[in-house]
Amino acid sequence: MNRILAASVVKHAGKEIMVQGWLHKKRLLGGLTFINVRDRSGLVQVVVKDKGEVEKLRGLQIGTVLSVTGKVVEDERAPGGAEMHDAKLDVLVPVTDEPPIEIDKPLNHAPENLDTLFEYRPIGLRNLQETAIFKIQSGIVQALREYFYQNDFTDVRTPKLLATATEGGAEVFKMDYFGKEATLAQSPQFYKQMLVGVFERVFEIAPVYRAEPSATTRHMTEYVSIDGEMGFISMKELEEFLGGLLNYVIDYVWERYERELKQWSIAKPVLPKQIPAMSMAEIHEKYSKATGENSVGEKDLRPDEERWICEYAAKELGSEAIFVTDWPADEMKFYHKAQDGKPELADRLDLLFRGVEIATGSMRENDHKVLVRQLKEKAGGDPNDPGFKYFLMAMRAGMPPHGGFGMGLERLTEKIVGLNNVKEATLFPRDINRLAP
Amino acid sequence: MNRILAASVVKHAGKEIMVQGWLHKKRLLGGLTFINVRDRSGLVQVVVKDKGEVEKLRGLQIGTVLSVTGKVVEDERAPGGAEMHDAKLDVLVPVTDEPPIEIDKPLNHAPENLDTLFEYRPIGLRNLQETAIFKIQSGIVQALREYFYQNDFTDVRTPKLLATATEGGAEVFKMDYFGKEATLAQSPQFYKQMLVGVFERVFEIAPVYRAEPSATTRHMTEYVSIDGEMGFISMKELEEFLGGLLNYVIDYVWERYERELKQWSIAKPVLPKQIPAMSMAEIHEKYSKATGENSVGEKDLRPDEERWICEYAAKELGSEAIFVTDWPADEMKFYHKAQDGKPELADRLDLLFRGVEIATGSMRENDHKVLVRQLKEKAGGDPNDPGFKYFLMAMRAGMPPHGGFGMGLERLTEKIVGLNNVKEATLFPRDINRLAP
Repeated sequence: MNRILAASVVKHAGKEIMVQGWLHKKRLLGGLTFINVRDRSGLVQVVVKDKGEVEKLRGLQIGTVLSVTGKVVEDERAPGGAEMHDAKLDVLVPVTDEPPIEIDKPLNHAPENLDTLFEYRPIGLRNLQETAIFKIQSGIVQALREYFYQNDFTDVRTPKLLATATEGGAEVFKMDYFGKEATLAQSPQFYKQMLVGVFERVFEIAPVYRAEPSATTRHMTEYVSIDGEMGFISMKELEEFLGGLLNYVIDYVWERYERELKQWSIAKPVLPKQIPAMSMAEIHEKYSKATGENSVGEKDLRPDEERWICEYAAKELGSEAIFVTDWPADEMKFYHKAQDGKPELADRLDLLFRGVEIATGSMRENDHKVLVRQLKEKAGGDPNDPGFKYFLMAMRAGMPPHGGFGMGLERLTEKIVGLNNVKEATLFPRDINRLAP
Repeated sequence: MNRILAASVVKHAGKEIMVQGWLHKKRLLGGLTFINVRDRSGLVQVVVKDKGEVEKLRGLQIGTVLSVTGKVVEDERAPGGAEMHDAKLDVLVPVTDEPPIEIDKPLNHAPENLDTLFEYRPIGLRNLQETAIFKIQSGIVQALREYFYQNDFTDVRTPKLLATATEGGAEVFKMDYFGKEATLAQSPQFYKQMLVGVFERVFEIAPVYRAEPSATTRHMTEYVSIDGEMGFISMKELEEFLGGLLNYVIDYVWERYERELKQWSIAKPVLPKQIPAMSMAEIHEKYSKATGENSVGEKDLRPDEERWICEYAAKELGSEAIFVTDWPADEMKFYHKAQDGKPELADRLDLLFRGVEIATGSMRENDHKVLVRQLKEKAGGDPNDPGFKYFLMAMRAGMPPHGGFGMGLERLTEKIVGLNNVKEATLFPRDINRLAP
């Protein structure tokens, strides 16, 4: 008999079918045993009546792998609209140990319980609420890629093993590389810019590494960076592209993942086609006036300010996302471009969504001479360092006006699902305290 | 005026248009200057006649970023079927240095020249023949993902920073992780198996790391692994899936990348729908008989044997790919499954394509007790080691019969394009001698 998936059982009403999956739940009700069998498509409810069959289940725990035959009976109360009756069970793989974590009710996501959550991750992920997060994440990356492809981007893969810490700083992992030193990439920044000279538009969705010494709700030592870079564009076009991308992802997920989103009772974000933008100075002013705090003149937004401006944008501008523009040049990386005629401001933007920064982008300095000067002045870098040399080789060989952005996949997932910690949106998170599972 | 892409110029015959891109080639012919302008879509030929315009080009090198307006004239001899006349040039970014590597004729891929090829990679990739390799690679990953999605797989991301060398061996990169030791993942093996318990079918396309101490044509220290893993399948189904996947990729690429494939004058591989399979013992016998070498009884295929059996399969079986089945148990990893009733053979297969192994797969041992025994006996592993503990936690909680495979993206690309070294199919390759660019 061919295997039928749980989600398709309802299509076989009245027929004898076979499903295969995991014992997900077991209940005794008035002499009958009700079990839920889980497979990749979801759950099916099975009524076990025969004493010999009930006996087979005795002592078998959640997770037992089963092959079940039975007759399909439509029933609106059952998950999927049908259940299986007169079931015969075949135990493919018995499980006799009680699972270390309960998988049939929502797991505890309170901050003090996250360690337990991750300790039993291989089992806890079988909880359908947890599974939903990563089904949605799988959809998010599909949506991202579709949008990139539709906009003529080439999908690239750049190395994560580097000769030197390209952007320097303490947060770089170092390792022994056959007696030399190698570092792990913090971003594909220089590579994606070099590749603009080749493909004009490139994207990469791949892991990056930060030796982040504190365990926060926003940072991990390994995360997935969504990087896009485009030639022959302006700041305005970069902003439009990024706004379009976020809108595309949200629509895509809400069209296709209704069942998974329901697990988290999360509302679709309100996003206008054109996401509003506000200069950092204006945000500082508005925030200071509204809260009595004084952030005027500061070079960055405070975390509290990011939350505040998101709430403001949702209420006053009808958008759960907002661009922060006109960054002070002090916050510029050496490869960023200063604004034309306003050297005190950088052509940089951050995209805030539901209270947190999910992406940062900028126009890049494409004048080789200016770039070399900025490298020396802003980063104290040596143009002959192998970490800069090849990047500058490309920048010297003709680079159009270009810009791009990096977005954190886990932050985006966290905010779409409505979680509170980026680690909850990571299958197997890494921080200073956690290298396993 | 809106920018028109080079590939679309022919659609605007008779009209005045504007293109933007890189000066790719410059020729003087009878008082006229012919230039090719490159953008993300390809090349357009531009005829520059006006003396002032010709003057602008003087001293400007290949790579100069231009905005060009002119009238479109159809001409079958021009790339794309049309060229631009009466051109006016606007130099957006001048380039005055001669490029360190020629980009308008095929680059030298001879083994002794590869170092030069990679040294100037940021510029050399602008050569359209080089670009073609990675356009095709972008298509390969799209095809792979499509096939996985069509077959109900979930796209996952697993950590590359690990607590211990899960599969041991000398070829593991070690690094300092806040005073502890971390290693870089050699494969997502245990994670994808754990996730079969969650999603039933998962795939990941992500970098993996091998501290390979020799520079060969087949190995790199960082490469992209295509990993698939499926629950509730048999060896036969795994073989069919993998054969279907290769067929899908080949058809996809040959349908969409005609222009890029032409750059490498490569014929479409002959692949039957069902790729032939042969046991290792039979290959040893056939090879020994045909060549006079004696490999009978050996535990692996010799590189020369891999080439030979591929030639044999192409000639005698009408297939440029072949599965090698029935591996001796000596070559088994501890998580592989021995064949039912034949403990001396493993349920493992390799997929050879055009002379080289591009994928290896197996059924996995899903009986927790047998698995623990094999871990101790075959790998000398400690079940309480964090590198095994969580894997075993999942395997104990109910795992169906499952299997999967790992495939090297660069090897697949190399063989599709017809290259001779896996590094040629890598944007920025890494080996013992090369960490930059």
